[in-house]
Amino acid sequence: MDIPAVDILAFDVFGTVVDWHGSIAREVDAMGLPVSGSEFALAWRAGYAPAMRRVMAGELPWSTIDALHRMILDELLARFRIDGLDESAKDHLNRAWHRLDPWPDAVAGIARLKTRFVAATLSNGNIALLTHMARHAGLPWDCILSAEIFRRYKPHPDTYLGVARVFGVPPERVMLVAAHHDDLAGARACGLRTAYIERPLEFGTAQPKDVSPRPGNDLHARNLLHLADMLGC
Amino acid sequence: MDIPAVDILAFDVFGTVVDWHGSIAREVDAMGLPVSGSEFALAWRAGYAPAMRRVMAGELPWSTIDALHRMILDELLARFRIDGLDESAKDHLNRAWHRLDPWPDAVAGIARLKTRFVAATLSNGNIALLTHMARHAGLPWDCILSAEIFRRYKPHPDTYLGVARVFGVPPERVMLVAAHHDDLAGARACGLRTAYIERPLEFGTAQPKDVSPRPGNDLHARNLLHLADMLGC
Repeated sequence: MDIPAVDILAFDVFGTVVDWHGSIAREVDAMGLPVSGSEFALAWRAGYAPAMRRVMAGELPWSTIDALHRMILDELLARFRIDGLDESAKDHLNRAWHRLDPWPDAVAGIARLKTRFVAATLSNGNIALLTHMARHAGLPWDCILSAEIFRRYKPHPDTYLGVARVFGVPPERVMLVAAHHDDLAGARACGLRTAYIERPLEFGTAQPKDVSPRPGNDLHARNLLHLADMLGC
Repeated sequence: MDIPAVDILAFDVFGTVVDWHGSIAREVDAMGLPVSGSEFALAWRAGYAPAMRRVMAGELPWSTIDALHRMILDELLARFRIDGLDESAKDHLNRAWHRLDPWPDAVAGIARLKTRFVAATLSNGNIALLTHMARHAGLPWDCILSAEIFRRYKPHPDTYLGVARVFGVPPERVMLVAAHHDDLAGARACGLRTAYIERPLEFGTAQPKDVSPRPGNDLHARNLLHLADMLGC
């Protein structure tokens, strides 16, 4: 297999690098709230794409993901009739997204990949969230790039092309690494290379995800260590 | 001494963390150009502030520091009557700013400081430059913030206040770490805390810099290890 000639690996983060479902479910369960942690995590995440669409449609002003997470959290607390949390507890819970745990291969995988490539995030998460997460999880990023910098969420082309512009390289010298086909399709449409990462348990053990290969991606890897193998790192 | 209650350390980079004069002088001397490396480095750096002022005055469009460095380099090659460099050699020389070496205390100092504080750059250098430099020099930043993100150069208030905004904290929870009084004054005017770092040899051994304490800064440290001592890291 030919190794794609790229300089920059741009990583999707939620689900690809860190286990949002397991991490949020554990925090919610540990708080003793009257709701299943897994169910709460899935509902919180389910509100994420619609909230970003409202921003992109101009219905909401430009917002950090922290602000969108908080808006969704307030809706969920009402829906699940949870009313015992004060402002400080709500803010702490909202920042659970800053404390997501990495998949077991993530830290070692990124460390190997960055020996040959620039390892940058390309996430809809805001810079503070991604920075705190990197400190919590030990993720050795070279650089944190975020939708916040481009003021567009993925899959808007400005995000993918923004990475190439920041580094002054043609789009085909950037590879998006992600566990989501819509994200990879957005990158591919902009001329980036793509690597799919299998994360069968992204939504928990109760609803395993179909991770079978689909045409179009340059690489299909079981995890980030496998990607490092494929890229000769 | 009371330790200032801050969350974020924002570091100036050129001169404060890396030795631009020594690094550029060594590269120029190694190329065997018919000019003193030290003189060339000083002239290159002297063009930097005027070039940024032309951008901020609207005389030039928004530009990365890479682009401004290249504009100044082309002027210097003409002024010093150096005409033997092809485009690839000029581009390589321009990227010498991506390969600046750290001061001897910088890597260990930042590593200690980031155990207690978020360690971010706040440099007029562009993101790619700072990212490549971090990889070259082993600088363990948590996050790379740049004038490129705020589309204003320091000392514009948007840069200092931008760090506080990105992290969602009041300005007084951010401390600028810098070897330059004008930079620190700009930060102070925005309500940031400030730490001055002595870099007596910033301009080379032939012209040592006055690094005596001046009023106004919260801290005055010999180097980044001394700052780590002062901040209890």
